[in-house]
Amino acid sequence: MKIILFVLSLAINYFCHAQSKPWDSTYKPGNWQLIVDQFRQYPNSSKDIIFLGNSITSGVDWNELLQNPNVRNRGISSDISFGILDRLDEVTEGKPAKVFILIGINDISRNVPDSFILKNYQLMITRIKKESPNTKIYFQTILPVNNEFKPSRNQFNKDEHILYINEELKKMAEREKICLIDLHSHFSGADQKLDKKYTYDGLHLNAAGYALWAELLKKGNYLKN
Amino acid sequence: MKIILFVLSLAINYFCHAQSKPWDSTYKPGNWQLIVDQFRQYPNSSKDIIFLGNSITSGVDWNELLQNPNVRNRGISSDISFGILDRLDEVTEGKPAKVFILIGINDISRNVPDSFILKNYQLMITRIKKESPNTKIYFQTILPVNNEFKPSRNQFNKDEHILYINEELKKMAEREKICLIDLHSHFSGADQKLDKKYTYDGLHLNAAGYALWAELLKKGNYLKN
Repeated sequence: MKIILFVLSLAINYFCHAQSKPWDSTYKPGNWQLIVDQFRQYPNSSKDIIFLGNSITSGVDWNELLQNPNVRNRGISSDISFGILDRLDEVTEGKPAKVFILIGINDISRNVPDSFILKNYQLMITRIKKESPNTKIYFQTILPVNNEFKPSRNQFNKDEHILYINEELKKMAEREKICLIDLHSHFSGADQKLDKKYTYDGLHLNAAGYALWAELLKKGNYLKN
Repeated sequence: MKIILFVLSLAINYFCHAQSKPWDSTYKPGNWQLIVDQFRQYPNSSKDIIFLGNSITSGVDWNELLQNPNVRNRGISSDISFGILDRLDEVTEGKPAKVFILIGINDISRNVPDSFILKNYQLMITRIKKESPNTKIYFQTILPVNNEFKPSRNQFNKDEHILYINEELKKMAEREKICLIDLHSHFSGADQKLDKKYTYDGLHLNAAGYALWAELLKKGNYLKN
């Protein structure tokens, strides 16, 4: 009987643990504060065009890619939407001309519920509109991933979250009258997976991927005043 | 007797292994080729000012730090002098105005002999002079490290190599009539260790460290034509 109770208590403990809040809104990548300190040291200009996001944004030199000296890289590897909110003042205090935001895949990988991610997008819009009313806001849909790459990643096999959030982002952008740039459909290959020609690991972009992103931004005239 | 022979063979094997070439000139950081592919995709200009090196160079946005739109970041985390030579054509084919080189601490950490590191610096000079004769070459002395930080790193406790290479670099720069920028003395605190106010881990620079580097470059008028 004691053994049965013991096994039962283990099982209960396991399931309770599995159902307890499995995500952490305070998560920060290791060098997050150091990188933000560096961002704060750079001078600001009202001509600044900010690219705000995670490793997918940080992984390229936007000045060189777009051949535009006003573009500023504000990507931090592994960052999540809560991290963006925690450093949004560094962006809005400069009263930049534009801000392009791509964030969310690491929230999804860390099991942040879709509703919280969407709430955070809404907070970003509200705060930018309030703190820097002349800044033009561009959201970009979350890129697809491709689970055929090894090693597997926590970002894989959660495609339904990517699709749902992107759908809701479109509605939010319409409601808030901000610009939404649909990257997802352009980067999707078969089965709505990240096309292999644009990635080296199923998550991050290679040079061809960044070239496509730059082409979409230029074709859409998003960088012009 | 057999046991004695066996132990002896183990010992010989151990010492031979310990004395065999403990370094690898072909070493490349994981994403090296991908990053170089990205570098090759960017357009070149004869106005380009190239910062070439490892993580210490890659860890800052040089455009923003120096407020100069012609500056290009060609830092790759963990790179060594052999890696620089293997991608030097990407630099020289653009016939840039200037190239600032800071490399060597990862060679030291990977036990590349000082003589090989110095030979590689000499090869860099010879090749840049040949492949892009109008490019002005700036070498920068290897920064000190600080072994009081945890976790310990392979770059620590090899200070005599840093000092020796820097001394030889000065002679080489004089001989080759290129400019040598002495960073080491400005970043040194007590005992010629990297001053704690400029680093967060004893190896890499924080915002104050990059601010000092920028100040030294500006004071020396190295960025002017």
